[in-house]
Amino acid sequence: MANPSTTLPPAGPKGLSILDSERMQSGIDTDNLAHHLLGCDGFRDRQKRILTVLEQHPLFCKRTTLHLSRVERFHLGLARAKELRRLSRRFGWSNEDDRMAEYLLDEVSPFALTHSLFSTSILEQGTDEQRSYWLPKVDRWEIVGCYAQTELAHGSNVQGIECQAEWNPATRDFTIHSPKLTSAKWWNGGLGRLADHAIVVAQLLVPDTRNVLQRHGPHLFIVQIRDMNTRQPLPGITIGDIGPKYGYATMDNGYMLFHHFRVPFSAMLARHSSIDAEGRYRKPANRSLLYGTMTSARAQIVSHARLVLARAVTIAIRYTLVRRQFRDRDAGSESPEEQVLNYPTVQIRILPLLAAVYALHYTGEAMSMLYESSRKRVEEGDGTALAGLHASSSGLKALCTTIVADGIETCRRVLGGHGYGPGSGLTVLNADYLAKATVEGDNWMITQQTASYLIKKMQKCVESDAAATSMDTTEKFFRAFIAERADASGFCRQIESFTDPVELLRAFRYRTASLAYHAYVLRVAKGAPWTEMMILLRTLSNAHCQTLLVEHFAAGLNQRKANNSLYGHTLAVLETLFRLFALHTLEVSVSEFLEFGILVPSQLDRLREDIRLLMQEVRPHAAKLVDAWEIPDYLIAGSLGKYAGNVYEELFQAAHYENPLNGQNFNAKWESREILLGEGEEAADERISAMLAVKTSGRDTGAPSPKL
Amino acid sequence: MANPSTTLPPAGPKGLSILDSERMQSGIDTDNLAHHLLGCDGFRDRQKRILTVLEQHPLFCKRTTLHLSRVERFHLGLARAKELRRLSRRFGWSNEDDRMAEYLLDEVSPFALTHSLFSTSILEQGTDEQRSYWLPKVDRWEIVGCYAQTELAHGSNVQGIECQAEWNPATRDFTIHSPKLTSAKWWNGGLGRLADHAIVVAQLLVPDTRNVLQRHGPHLFIVQIRDMNTRQPLPGITIGDIGPKYGYATMDNGYMLFHHFRVPFSAMLARHSSIDAEGRYRKPANRSLLYGTMTSARAQIVSHARLVLARAVTIAIRYTLVRRQFRDRDAGSESPEEQVLNYPTVQIRILPLLAAVYALHYTGEAMSMLYESSRKRVEEGDGTALAGLHASSSGLKALCTTIVADGIETCRRVLGGHGYGPGSGLTVLNADYLAKATVEGDNWMITQQTASYLIKKMQKCVESDAAATSMDTTEKFFRAFIAERADASGFCRQIESFTDPVELLRAFRYRTASLAYHAYVLRVAKGAPWTEMMILLRTLSNAHCQTLLVEHFAAGLNQRKANNSLYGHTLAVLETLFRLFALHTLEVSVSEFLEFGILVPSQLDRLREDIRLLMQEVRPHAAKLVDAWEIPDYLIAGSLGKYAGNVYEELFQAAHYENPLNGQNFNAKWESREILLGEGEEAADERISAMLAVKTSGRDTGAPSPKL
Repeated sequence: MANPSTTLPPAGPKGLSILDSERMQSGIDTDNLAHHLLGCDGFRDRQKRILTVLEQHPLFCKRTTLHLSRVERFHLGLARAKELRRLSRRFGWSNEDDRMAEYLLDEVSPFALTHSLFSTSILEQGTDEQRSYWLPKVDRWEIVGCYAQTELAHGSNVQGIECQAEWNPATRDFTIHSPKLTSAKWWNGGLGRLADHAIVVAQLLVPDTRNVLQRHGPHLFIVQIRDMNTRQPLPGITIGDIGPKYGYATMDNGYMLFHHFRVPFSAMLARHSSIDAEGRYRKPANRSLLYGTMTSARAQIVSHARLVLARAVTIAIRYTLVRRQFRDRDAGSESPEEQVLNYPTVQIRILPLLAAVYALHYTGEAMSMLYESSRKRVEEGDGTALAGLHASSSGLKALCTTIVADGIETCRRVLGGHGYGPGSGLTVLNADYLAKATVEGDNWMITQQTASYLIKKMQKCVESDAAATSMDTTEKFFRAFIAERADASGFCRQIESFTDPVELLRAFRYRTASLAYHAYVLRVAKGAPWTEMMILLRTLSNAHCQTLLVEHFAAGLNQRKANNSLYGHTLAVLETLFRLFALHTLEVSVSEFLEFGILVPSQLDRLREDIRLLMQEVRPHAAKLVDAWEIPDYLIAGSLGKYAGNVYEELFQAAHYENPLNGQNFNAKWESREILLGEGEEAADERISAMLAVKTSGRDTGAPSPKL
Repeated sequence: MANPSTTLPPAGPKGLSILDSERMQSGIDTDNLAHHLLGCDGFRDRQKRILTVLEQHPLFCKRTTLHLSRVERFHLGLARAKELRRLSRRFGWSNEDDRMAEYLLDEVSPFALTHSLFSTSILEQGTDEQRSYWLPKVDRWEIVGCYAQTELAHGSNVQGIECQAEWNPATRDFTIHSPKLTSAKWWNGGLGRLADHAIVVAQLLVPDTRNVLQRHGPHLFIVQIRDMNTRQPLPGITIGDIGPKYGYATMDNGYMLFHHFRVPFSAMLARHSSIDAEGRYRKPANRSLLYGTMTSARAQIVSHARLVLARAVTIAIRYTLVRRQFRDRDAGSESPEEQVLNYPTVQIRILPLLAAVYALHYTGEAMSMLYESSRKRVEEGDGTALAGLHASSSGLKALCTTIVADGIETCRRVLGGHGYGPGSGLTVLNADYLAKATVEGDNWMITQQTASYLIKKMQKCVESDAAATSMDTTEKFFRAFIAERADASGFCRQIESFTDPVELLRAFRYRTASLAYHAYVLRVAKGAPWTEMMILLRTLSNAHCQTLLVEHFAAGLNQRKANNSLYGHTLAVLETLFRLFALHTLEVSVSEFLEFGILVPSQLDRLREDIRLLMQEVRPHAAKLVDAWEIPDYLIAGSLGKYAGNVYEELFQAAHYENPLNGQNFNAKWESREILLGEGEEAADERISAMLAVKTSGRDTGAPSPKL
């Protein structure tokens, strides 16, 4: 007989009926909005097509993920990554299809670097000959590649890496060597257990005419590192996996040490710089050409962020609509408990993040366009656009990944207890995404690059007249700012209206210009030490990038207004969302606006009240504003954020039927060393010892397990 | 022959010589400071004594933790918890010794609730008879207890819990029943696999004279839930573990459903309310007496927080002293790379948290004293102090656990890449501590309790003259604030000095009073809806609790100044640390100070510059200011924060010699389903299938593993 307790329904209405009535009350046309957000490059159809394959395949079922050890997750991750390749061949998937499968599986593939930094490096830094030798091998998946730049002691400061590549004039080859422990390559994804080839970044050392070694800075070398059959590291190379990280369990981030390892002349990627026939170093025309790979990765991070945040916000909104807790204090004692999303203290955490998803969307679109146009110009030999692209991609990478990393955690906490539990669907996402705060440039460190660019731009605006050539938006506003400063009379900087997008954008630009001018005066006019200015530099970079988010959000909506691609009511809601984003962003950094007189303290009360009212306006559309992102239940994974909203049934199902711990019965007596009831003390000792045994590289040390 | 690469030293000086020269440059007497911070109740001696036992015991070695699955961690955790009990008996440990062992092991014990909420409930809510029956069983560790209050759908709103206890007049017993799925007990620590007894919180239903059931709100019942020998749930009860959580892997947080389960009259904990001889309900004299247990837990959370944050800050400071990255931009190209802690962008993240550790310390001391004095008065039948204690413990719990939870993550990120890696020592701490943001009252929700108390207090101050009886500090300042408001002439609210502790404290108090007055006017005079005010209420609560932190920090130092217990130079550094804490806290919420005219925008630049200069003053003492907390290497666990600072050697040791993944060799060919090289495709399929198999409660469903 079934246990009657296990078939009980939850109290109150079913989750689906709650969410459906939420969906009924909003006039948004979800399909129209989804098409607007995701329709442009066939994303929606692709997602449906690939999803069908993964959902029906037992290997891609995610229900046991949280129960597995790190070693198990790596094994399973490898099995999945291989099967994805086989599926890709069988179904004839495109590169975009492959990426969609990885996105839906939501596990970083140990092969991922092969098709990103490894192949991009060959493409961007390899000669035509190197390209045509290596890229087909990558395309045919014959080799597994990784990108070995970061070292144990150097990541951010690429110039400081210690691994060396010394040119041997006599043999016309290079010796790659790790002189100290700190020069060990470290963190490189795919290296630890799998990669057979690596792009190795090393300090190029070339003897000059008097045979004195000259250091030419970091250069890229393509190196075979493992035997293709035995999978053992080649002699002279030490490799391993660095161990369990905060997230990224399925990736074998590795370490590598070279002991006087010889590689041929052809190993050096020689598109922009090389060793010539006389054994002399040929410099690149433009050093920044050597670092294009990172800029590309940063641009992708920005555009990836919106879907990650959309997922976290989808979970947060659906669950806080289904969950009820407390009655309204001013309502009668018989009134039903409130939906949690009705509380302003819940809204203020979720709804600005919902707005941020949209801001990231339009900014990601703009960044992709900028990246493509800059790449074309570089291909044509014009590197002048790189500085601006690099500056905005650095600052935006830092700001956007911080918004999203913090946003996931905010969403997790707003779920209350269940956000900490097995059903949140955010445990793995949180642990994985936090890597973004550091990878591809530490989020605090790289703001200096953006700030440096802005200070130079302000200096140019102050010190020279406008060039006849094209000015970007930032330069235009900087020049207007300087002109207005000079005209002490009329210019009123204070923001009057919290509703006019033009005035809001102007307020953000005015803050950026004020900070840039302040930093310019300190650095250029007063000669302040760079290090002492660092906090200001970060403030400046973030201010600039917040301005970009506001600017691109506004421009994105204006464009849709112009081409009528959004139905009227939907556009109106998005305009409300824009204002919420702008005002909330303003409030978060309000002291900077107050400092420059763009706002006065007496306006603060109205600002906060406006934000509260905007959240009330957005609230009825919350369910549909996340539905439109079409995050599939397969990707949501946990119990709380699925489309049908059956949160309690799902939580109970996972706990009662899918938890291996519940198949085990324990001896709770402290006097006994037995753990599983009936196994006996010796058997328990043996199992526990095995858990404590420290394993060594390649083989056991032969040391016995600890004696308990 | 040993691989020459594996025995390389790091570049640059050894970690210990770096940290030792840091220690030499500060005049702080570490032993004197450690005695001041930790000496009061024998903490230092106890830590040394217990540490020796654990460090030498192989069962308590933590090096494999990150490699284990959740089920393994639970098994190991149970083995350790039992061994701790055996050690306690063998060595005759006191309760404080037991707690020290748990603190050093740094794993929540599945028995923990037995000795906290379970026994505290019996003590606070049980009759003398119930106490004398149950507490000796707890003391002798004969039973394993848990505290079953939270349910699947109700946590924060205790009044809303759905589990029922119905009084049966005929049989003079109760029927405990879970009417719906949402009434399942959920989250209760120790319940899932181990506890044999539970305190069950259920809605008491008693038939009145016309036999109509009357609801009397949540009451506590002590219930045996498992057979003491078979460990199976008793008939009519369904129990299990809820599954892998964000952290707390070693705890079996459980769920429980009752199906018309009968418990005797003696099950109801009847100290404050009960069923009388005629079967009528006897109300408690004071309802708040029923909720003392939670207040006690909250007070402990606050005092626990400082050592957790001290650990994270110790790791962050030691590693950022050893790590060097980038040269000073204004120095020559031959200058050495900078210690990372020299950058203001690193200091601004760590040093205010270092100051916060000290603020939490003095506040924790004050709270413990307040809790003890309140408890004594309650024991004497005087419950009047409970409201104030409850208000400050709620708000401080919310603020302090948020500071620490966010602080751990800030420290993790400031470590750069290695903060995401296996050596951070913060992976488990972060995951475990984040529970505190929700457990014992959601950090956003419970701020209402503090705000409500402050609004009532302000109302009392506005509406009635000072009582002759004792006024607390808050009431005194509220009355002064009202008097000064009335006197429109002279009162200058603006802060003039950023150095005078008295003026700083006054600024914080003025902000609290301004916010409380604003909230009072809105709510009492204008009748604003409570829900609409919630964001303001949280702001008010946090403002009050920031004020308490500043106040207790200042008072703590004043007291030491008076009794000369700190050597002169140490006291001067702590005073700098106090100013840093106060000014940084002010800056974080500066818009509230600007809004009420306590600060004007033109002072912002000086405020930030003062903070930077204070950080420069603290910087040379950073190493010793964390040394004084005497966090043992055993507790730091990772590679980055140990006393000797050998970060690179430790990272390499753990990766190269202690990572089980490095003992395995993989088949990287995507065409093959084989995972471990040479195991064959069928063997791989079988292993992977097992990882995907969903296990069911108590036994397998008999469903086959998924076919790949």
